Amino acid sequence: MNFHGGNIYDYKNIKYDFSSNINPLGVPESFKNALYNNIDMLSKYPDREYRELIKSLERYLGMSGFKIILGNGAVEVIHEIISLSEFDRVYTIVPTFSEYKRGALLSNKEFHGVECYNQDYTGVDIEYLLNEVRENSLVILCNPNNPTGYYINNEEMKEISEKLNKKNCDLLIDEAFIEFTPDYPNSSFLSNLCHCPNVTIIRAITKFFGMPGIRLGYGITGDLGLWERVRQSQDPWNINTAAVIAGCTVLEDMEYIEKSRKWIEEERADFYNNLSKIKDLKVIPSAANYHLLKIVKKGMDAFNLRDILINEGILIRVPTGFYPLTRGYFRLAVLDDKSNTAILKALNFVFRMVGNESQSKNTGFHRRTYTRKN
Amino acid sequence: MNFHGGNIYDYKNIKYDFSSNINPLGVPESFKNALYNNIDMLSKYPDREYRELIKSLERYLGMSGFKIILGNGAVEVIHEIISLSEFDRVYTIVPTFSEYKRGALLSNKEFHGVECYNQDYTGVDIEYLLNEVRENSLVILCNPNNPTGYYINNEEMKEISEKLNKKNCDLLIDEAFIEFTPDYPNSSFLSNLCHCPNVTIIRAITKFFGMPGIRLGYGITGDLGLWERVRQSQDPWNINTAAVIAGCTVLEDMEYIEKSRKWIEEERADFYNNLSKIKDLKVIPSAANYHLLKIVKKGMDAFNLRDILINEGILIRVPTGFYPLTRGYFRLAVLDDKSNTAILKALNFVFRMVGNESQSKNTGFHRRTYTRKN
Repeated sequence: MNFHGGNIYDYKNIKYDFSSNINPLGVPESFKNALYNNIDMLSKYPDREYRELIKSLERYLGMSGFKIILGNGAVEVIHEIISLSEFDRVYTIVPTFSEYKRGALLSNKEFHGVECYNQDYTGVDIEYLLNEVRENSLVILCNPNNPTGYYINNEEMKEISEKLNKKNCDLLIDEAFIEFTPDYPNSSFLSNLCHCPNVTIIRAITKFFGMPGIRLGYGITGDLGLWERVRQSQDPWNINTAAVIAGCTVLEDMEYIEKSRKWIEEERADFYNNLSKIKDLKVIPSAANYHLLKIVKKGMDAFNLRDILINEGILIRVPTGFYPLTRGYFRLAVLDDKSNTAILKALNFVFRMVGNESQSKNTGFHRRTYTRKN
Repeated sequence: MNFHGGNIYDYKNIKYDFSSNINPLGVPESFKNALYNNIDMLSKYPDREYRELIKSLERYLGMSGFKIILGNGAVEVIHEIISLSEFDRVYTIVPTFSEYKRGALLSNKEFHGVECYNQDYTGVDIEYLLNEVRENSLVILCNPNNPTGYYINNEEMKEISEKLNKKNCDLLIDEAFIEFTPDYPNSSFLSNLCHCPNVTIIRAITKFFGMPGIRLGYGITGDLGLWERVRQSQDPWNINTAAVIAGCTVLEDMEYIEKSRKWIEEERADFYNNLSKIKDLKVIPSAANYHLLKIVKKGMDAFNLRDILINEGILIRVPTGFYPLTRGYFRLAVLDDKSNTAILKALNFVFRMVGNESQSKNTGFHRRTYTRKN
């Protein structure tokens, strides 16, 4: 069984869920109203071609001429693309989202997790990655990456895609968290898609629009062959009507979008600064709506910390499923001011109780690739 | 591209959609209220184990001790079971739901469509089917069948399952329309499941509860190995929160259930009787919420008829995808009195215009199996 965030159902009385990377502004009012007004649409099958939804996505992205692959959550799109890729080898930089590995193994493909972060998880050795990747492979990069929050800028990404293209490799960029980055929309690789025929981009409504219960992810590609193969393989009506209504309303909800961007800019900076004051924790800077943290206090790891915080109604994300993270790492979503204050108070209390130690600093690189075949 | 019902989006101004087999009572009020009251649940990931939903299904089915496989629509469950079956051959009686064949071919399995209906589609030659099926195969029976409405009773089904068991074959019974049958719940094979270890049953909320936009299907099985394989293969959070809320409310909505059963009993009989009065049409008796009809007027087929009726805002289901049905066949959902009256008026008008011919009657059996490999 794989492990993801969002396991609040395994615990009782969770007041603050820092384990899911979800916009805390919650379900947009625009969607609630649209759902109330269109509830009887549920009595019809959705349009099998999802024409209105695709138009809405194209307007939101400010693009057309590419093909859009819709999924019941981004995970479905990820799995379909891995499964239907022409290539039998999948590479990614680890630690990252565990569904890339799971998708590769489910499709009987080789999975290569390239360890090329520096020891602080503040930089990656792209040259090492590119040297490791063999010809005729699919490379998946989560950008910004989950769980490190590390962001590869467009110039670097363009170089990566070009070098991969020379090796006849495809590049899948998972931009599930891109709307949280400081200079979105410029941070997205989308505007480069027309120059990079080997690139497909994945997005989701789940995270930025605060509705993980809705399940709507999408891929944007110029690869007609891939799009056609996915289309032939997908179940009919894989997107339910509630998700269609969501996609046709929230993407135009400028008030929600602006409020969310204001929230993330303010809270991410505040949260980072306040977390950084806790001496037993090392906070990794992040371009996304979460932070990876390392416990540098002896005798304490993420699992101990989770158990302590659960008693305070606080859930954190332990490193299970994020190989090669060790037990000392955990991930925290950036939530609203009240929640962030609550966990800061709890963390200050926990770490004051166990005492302080000085932070170590090590920027050397790990360089290793591990391979799994099913 | 496969073809299903529900393609109202390809046409403008469809007032009466007879192409989708959906309860016309529409979205249950109990669900609307539950959705309004719990809309903020969408801001959380669903429970990955779907514990509440499974409990609700067990209460509805009056059973426990079996494993439940949840799908984003019954189609997902069908495809997972075909794909993860131990066997590489799939048999079914044709004509039937096209997703069995599609699922088999997508999974690189042999598909065998056994033609063993009599020429009126009022009976099947089970012996012929059982003789055709080779050892170590998966047999799928839609019961009642789509599009014929033919129902195999529990005694016959038990015999089929036992004979298949001796051949080391599994039986998948698709009961998507079982709640519409006259003596439901006795008509369901569910109570026999404990005696038939090779049987899995599939159901859906889609049809009976009038919500095809919601996408919630489920399989019930005692085959722990199959259940575990599907669980490992399925995407996390494949059921969205709106579907969870639906499954936790409408299954207990006795008012909707009783109203729906009263509607289908009355309207199916009335609709059948009135359709039977049209001399150019042969109506096939049905245990489900739709009728297969044959046009016996020369110079007219289902495609001509569709084009004529579309001008009246009426959509019928042409036989595309229902091999070996010929162009003369079409399917009509049983709708509400107003809609049924509208199509009867239109059909009477069309067929009066082209004149009448006497009905032919032929109860001989087709017996043939066609095989497809990907």
